[in-house]
Amino acid sequence: MKKKKLVVIGGDAAGMSAASKVRREQPDFEIIVFEKSEYTSYSACGIPYFISGKVENLEELIVRSPEKFIEKYNIKAKTLHEVLEVDTDNNKVLVHNYNDKTQFWESYDALLIATGGKAFCPEVKNHTADGIFGIQTLNSGKKVDAFITKHQPKKAVIVGGGYIGLEMAEALILKGIEVTIIDRAKEVMATLDPDMGKKVHEVLVELGVTIFNSESLSYFEEKEGKVTAVVTDKKTIKADMVILGMGTAPNTSFLAKSKIKLSDRKAIKVNRYQQTNVKNVWAAGDCAETKNLVSNKPFYIALGTVANKTGLVAGTNIAGGTLKFPGVVATAVCKICVYEIARTGLLESECVAFKIDFVSTIIKSKTRAHYYPEAKDIFVKLIAEKGTGKLLGGQIIGEEDAAKRIDVLATALTSKLTLQNIIDLDLSYAPPVSPVWDPVQTAARKLINRI
Amino acid sequence: MKKKKLVVIGGDAAGMSAASKVRREQPDFEIIVFEKSEYTSYSACGIPYFISGKVENLEELIVRSPEKFIEKYNIKAKTLHEVLEVDTDNNKVLVHNYNDKTQFWESYDALLIATGGKAFCPEVKNHTADGIFGIQTLNSGKKVDAFITKHQPKKAVIVGGGYIGLEMAEALILKGIEVTIIDRAKEVMATLDPDMGKKVHEVLVELGVTIFNSESLSYFEEKEGKVTAVVTDKKTIKADMVILGMGTAPNTSFLAKSKIKLSDRKAIKVNRYQQTNVKNVWAAGDCAETKNLVSNKPFYIALGTVANKTGLVAGTNIAGGTLKFPGVVATAVCKICVYEIARTGLLESECVAFKIDFVSTIIKSKTRAHYYPEAKDIFVKLIAEKGTGKLLGGQIIGEEDAAKRIDVLATALTSKLTLQNIIDLDLSYAPPVSPVWDPVQTAARKLINRI
Repeated sequence: MKKKKLVVIGGDAAGMSAASKVRREQPDFEIIVFEKSEYTSYSACGIPYFISGKVENLEELIVRSPEKFIEKYNIKAKTLHEVLEVDTDNNKVLVHNYNDKTQFWESYDALLIATGGKAFCPEVKNHTADGIFGIQTLNSGKKVDAFITKHQPKKAVIVGGGYIGLEMAEALILKGIEVTIIDRAKEVMATLDPDMGKKVHEVLVELGVTIFNSESLSYFEEKEGKVTAVVTDKKTIKADMVILGMGTAPNTSFLAKSKIKLSDRKAIKVNRYQQTNVKNVWAAGDCAETKNLVSNKPFYIALGTVANKTGLVAGTNIAGGTLKFPGVVATAVCKICVYEIARTGLLESECVAFKIDFVSTIIKSKTRAHYYPEAKDIFVKLIAEKGTGKLLGGQIIGEEDAAKRIDVLATALTSKLTLQNIIDLDLSYAPPVSPVWDPVQTAARKLINRI
Repeated sequence: MKKKKLVVIGGDAAGMSAASKVRREQPDFEIIVFEKSEYTSYSACGIPYFISGKVENLEELIVRSPEKFIEKYNIKAKTLHEVLEVDTDNNKVLVHNYNDKTQFWESYDALLIATGGKAFCPEVKNHTADGIFGIQTLNSGKKVDAFITKHQPKKAVIVGGGYIGLEMAEALILKGIEVTIIDRAKEVMATLDPDMGKKVHEVLVELGVTIFNSESLSYFEEKEGKVTAVVTDKKTIKADMVILGMGTAPNTSFLAKSKIKLSDRKAIKVNRYQQTNVKNVWAAGDCAETKNLVSNKPFYIALGTVANKTGLVAGTNIAGGTLKFPGVVATAVCKICVYEIARTGLLESECVAFKIDFVSTIIKSKTRAHYYPEAKDIFVKLIAEKGTGKLLGGQIIGEEDAAKRIDVLATALTSKLTLQNIIDLDLSYAPPVSPVWDPVQTAARKLINRI
């Protein structure tokens, strides 16, 4: 019997989780992974910490090298190989080998697309100038680091005040670079409601960041190929370097001619088993769409956690098992200096869009007992359905422990808990770790009076 | 119409939560609270931090004074008043007033018993000697502090290595006192399985604590009324002071002659509305029994969180509302120096006792991304039902963030989640706050292969 051949496109979290799972379950499968860069299985989320110097070597971000996949797992990890085209009628992919600049067709019995995402950048004037960086791959981290070393930039402009924007703001502040953020929304962190975004704004200003809200990128100015300024619809801001934090777009342009269905946002449509509309073709990670468990609607989110989980699900199913990925509640966190900024579930604006009648509240509490010397401020926002009190979303900003508190809300959301259920939760308490009513419960106690 | 009169016995968390709730809902009720000590509404859990000096003034532990209850809430908080007897046939209680040493009967329309718990101490020889302390009331904290100031003890023996024992160990270490813990169990922290207790043991030894396990208290030695040694079934240990950490017993001896039903452990039996078997008599807090939501059995646990919640439920119902307290999953945490020790759900020994077929695992992971410089070790133990994979319990020891991670497991237990559900949870991730797979998910991924 012919050995079954799995081809994986993309050698990071989703692709390698899947490939490793298939290898564990099916020792006889032939597994080939084509990866465009020279790296496999790395933590792109760690790049800001490499740039800030908190992580000394880029190699620390690599979980497993191509060599290790080849030697230890019998997975043919082929780096500097880019897939240019997928022909699902004939079960083959067109591959460009950057090593010898050749192209070839590779056939497959099963195909997993795990090409991830790329920093979104509108194709404005001079958008390819030197000194303008998206932060998505290990290579982008390497380039930013080399640029800073070579040019010693004094002023950086970050376009977009989301997670990557904020994490890069911290990294650049730590490098002694002056940071300006421009954001087209009314507040930074559009993944929070504006009332919580305003608190993030205050935190950033406190850290020395200049912020221009309600301002859109028009184009870049350059001199001798190097960026010199960001021009918005309102002004020109001098910049020795630019970071793009305008969100992530799925890496799916190579599928344009294929029969694989994409969403309006160009993310690959998959079912709960991570199968695409085409037989024997799976997709996982930042290139694929998922489902929002709160809204019950298709949803795009580019996160390492989801990439790992959907990769594992795809791998299980490709190997002949049966596993569903239920979806996400859109939990995310970022840390900027001492502040943790966390969110889960729906925003108020999403509730409005989905015509869900809701109530919301923001409370200020402490991370520890009020009398415990290291107690820090923490703000919790809860959104719940009017009438039923069912939790719809939560946002937390704190000088510590916002992340793990959002996880309680994420678990509550997944389990469809109500505010009363949250009040009843048997959460841990000791003066050095929490007030007797955890801040998420204090928020629930306040909000329940209004449902 | 005659004003309805509520009598509350006990002026701490449960009693005052209830009284305040009744006041908010029923401005016309007469509310009288009898409190044995001179304090109301304080955090007994904060006592170790007052003794260590982290909290400077005992008053910081007081949430609301008797005066404030009287003036602001129209709640007649009568301190130094002890209830000696309850006559449910005639709806009245016998009160001893320590101020003027008089006794009187007070009638009630509704009675809430919220007398809390007391440090358990067997009535062994010299158990009333000076220098032997339970840690339960604000007064006990005051006495320990005064004793340390006056006698400058060099050696302390803590009898019982549970939460209070460990928190007091930290406090005394910080005061420069040499600490020995004796515990009759094979390991300290009997609320953990012995394999996790062993790790706590190692932590304590590292902090300089001497531990004698499998050793029982026989009696105390004293000189001129002051304790000089703890005698166990194996040896005599010199002691300038002794802390009793052998657990909490409900304060219910004054009910011995009443018709109010007690459990074998002498905790007041209540239904989900916090009603006792006697009409118009409620109970809440450390004097009452509750229910374990995992075993579905009656359960006794003395914790501030439960006292606040059951007080609120009792108050709601006394005021004419309808609210149930579902029960607990037995979540608890304590911090000793940098280590957080947390638990929820059932122990292996409880699973055995309840004839539940289970699997368990312990994993070691990191609190943050492996490459993030401040990442600390964390150990997670999970127990799940064989066959179904339903979570039964979790125990976490970490140098940070064990408490908030146990809360995810507590929420999962309450929602009856399985290991697969836990793996699927959309928990927050950023390198400074978590690995991409949270340690609780890493444990679930390991254990799921064995169900």
